[in-house]
Amino acid sequence: MNRLNELFKIKYPIVQGGMVWCSGWRLASAVSNNGGLGLIGSGSMYPDVFKEHIKKCKKATKKPFGVNLPLLYPNIDDHINTILDEKIKIVFTSAGSPNKYTQLLKENGIIVVHVIANQKFALKCVDAGVDAIVAEGFEAGGHNGIDEITTMCLIPQIKSTVDIPLIAAGGIASGESILAAMSLGADGVQIGSLFASSLESSAHENFKKKIIESKDGDTALTLKEITPVRMLKNEFYDQIQKAYNNNASKDELIKLLSRGRAKKGIFEGDLVNGELEIGQISSNISEIKPVSAIMNDLVVNFNKKLDFLSTKLM
Amino acid sequence: MNRLNELFKIKYPIVQGGMVWCSGWRLASAVSNNGGLGLIGSGSMYPDVFKEHIKKCKKATKKPFGVNLPLLYPNIDDHINTILDEKIKIVFTSAGSPNKYTQLLKENGIIVVHVIANQKFALKCVDAGVDAIVAEGFEAGGHNGIDEITTMCLIPQIKSTVDIPLIAAGGIASGESILAAMSLGADGVQIGSLFASSLESSAHENFKKKIIESKDGDTALTLKEITPVRMLKNEFYDQIQKAYNNNASKDELIKLLSRGRAKKGIFEGDLVNGELEIGQISSNISEIKPVSAIMNDLVVNFNKKLDFLSTKLM
Repeated sequence: MNRLNELFKIKYPIVQGGMVWCSGWRLASAVSNNGGLGLIGSGSMYPDVFKEHIKKCKKATKKPFGVNLPLLYPNIDDHINTILDEKIKIVFTSAGSPNKYTQLLKENGIIVVHVIANQKFALKCVDAGVDAIVAEGFEAGGHNGIDEITTMCLIPQIKSTVDIPLIAAGGIASGESILAAMSLGADGVQIGSLFASSLESSAHENFKKKIIESKDGDTALTLKEITPVRMLKNEFYDQIQKAYNNNASKDELIKLLSRGRAKKGIFEGDLVNGELEIGQISSNISEIKPVSAIMNDLVVNFNKKLDFLSTKLM
Repeated sequence: MNRLNELFKIKYPIVQGGMVWCSGWRLASAVSNNGGLGLIGSGSMYPDVFKEHIKKCKKATKKPFGVNLPLLYPNIDDHINTILDEKIKIVFTSAGSPNKYTQLLKENGIIVVHVIANQKFALKCVDAGVDAIVAEGFEAGGHNGIDEITTMCLIPQIKSTVDIPLIAAGGIASGESILAAMSLGADGVQIGSLFASSLESSAHENFKKKIIESKDGDTALTLKEITPVRMLKNEFYDQIQKAYNNNASKDELIKLLSRGRAKKGIFEGDLVNGELEIGQISSNISEIKPVSAIMNDLVVNFNKKLDFLSTKLM
């Protein structure tokens, strides 16, 4: 249908975001089996766990899948070796410069996609030779850009700047919002929160329930001094705000964070002391569903809305 | 074409936002004459000036137009009297509770629209009996909601909450983004920044040039303690940040603001000491154009994108 489907050899231009503690082989293979592109999120995995997830994913699907690689990962060389050893064909890199590994990956025949949040980094991606870009808006969950540019503004901006396949992320959790993203100029979308709440997500049941119960205004972007991150407001979030009010130093903030907070919240289900990374659109998610139902809803509602909008302005 | 066009009796579901120091009779009548709904922004006008703009607007267009009324306006009763005396038919209220004046206005046969930025206020609007809602996202210029909900997340949220005509605002400056907003569930859009930069806007030439030169990441939302406002980052913005770093009190911040800063920046063209209220989408505006050309571009590009997107997901 479009150049994104062609690039990845997938049926629908829908990518499941690689998310810490949510997207293991089970979620990635389910998305791929249902016509999207599943990604294993390597950021929360030790090297041996990562390898195991890849092997299991290969068994669970014959369809294309990929991995997400946060370039800040401490043992990144181990992950790179795993990717090459296992002959992974699609890698999404994030949280770092696209110059760092794009060449190496491409020399090994890998399709490279990089996540950006402003125009400057989009241009860097093109210079580095990446195959496609994920442009992620302010409303997205987890780690986020410093410029606070929303999906509505970011997509047309990037579209007018570079001409490689463009994947919109941030605030997308319905067929209608896929159509909106494509209206803005995206070739397809990356969806996080909705898949984080799916049956096949490896997140803790408590976390999934918290997502579907959340209301508008329940998330916030914080920790802008270290690395901006969007999370649900809970007691841990309050601790961060208290630290700000006490003029905490950068080191103190890092110390507050670096206690496996995301694992505690997302994977272990500690809703009080855990870091509950999720997107602003979580308030629109109302049910824990299997990936097959989610993908079906996305496609059906995209098509329905397209029919509804078929009248031109005259 | 849809219930918004029917409500206002306009050709295109496009409202020009009422903006301080930009939207006088000249801009409002130009938008109305070109098939949209023009609004006179009363927030920056003394009562006699407001009356004069209404009279001039009536002479300049036979099409429907309205006024925007910020409910925080100090001499609000004067403005209400002017609205009733001049038999204004459409009033957009903002920055306050819809309970305050909706009944009085409706008793006088006026169509009332209220601006909101979250679900709670959307429900209040329905209770108050308003005829339509503007849902304004975090990316919008000027005064803004406290929950930082982006247009991409806000529109589906509001759409699923209330069933009165819904106008999307924030981040919209192209036909493509009108289509995106309508994909998300809006019946139409309110456009600010693009019209602020138009030939017919009463803003100073310096300010318009600054808009079209601005890059992504050049605006920020600040002054969250008083009333969140999005502006271009300039020396005045830096003064606010400095005040924050020095733990300025709320009173000190108010004092810093209350020196006619918006007038200075937008109307007098002082780009250093003025408050340059504008939306995040300003980075996508590249030319000062007459309203007729802007409206034509919006409609043509909406229709073009609709044609382009006509393929369903299969």
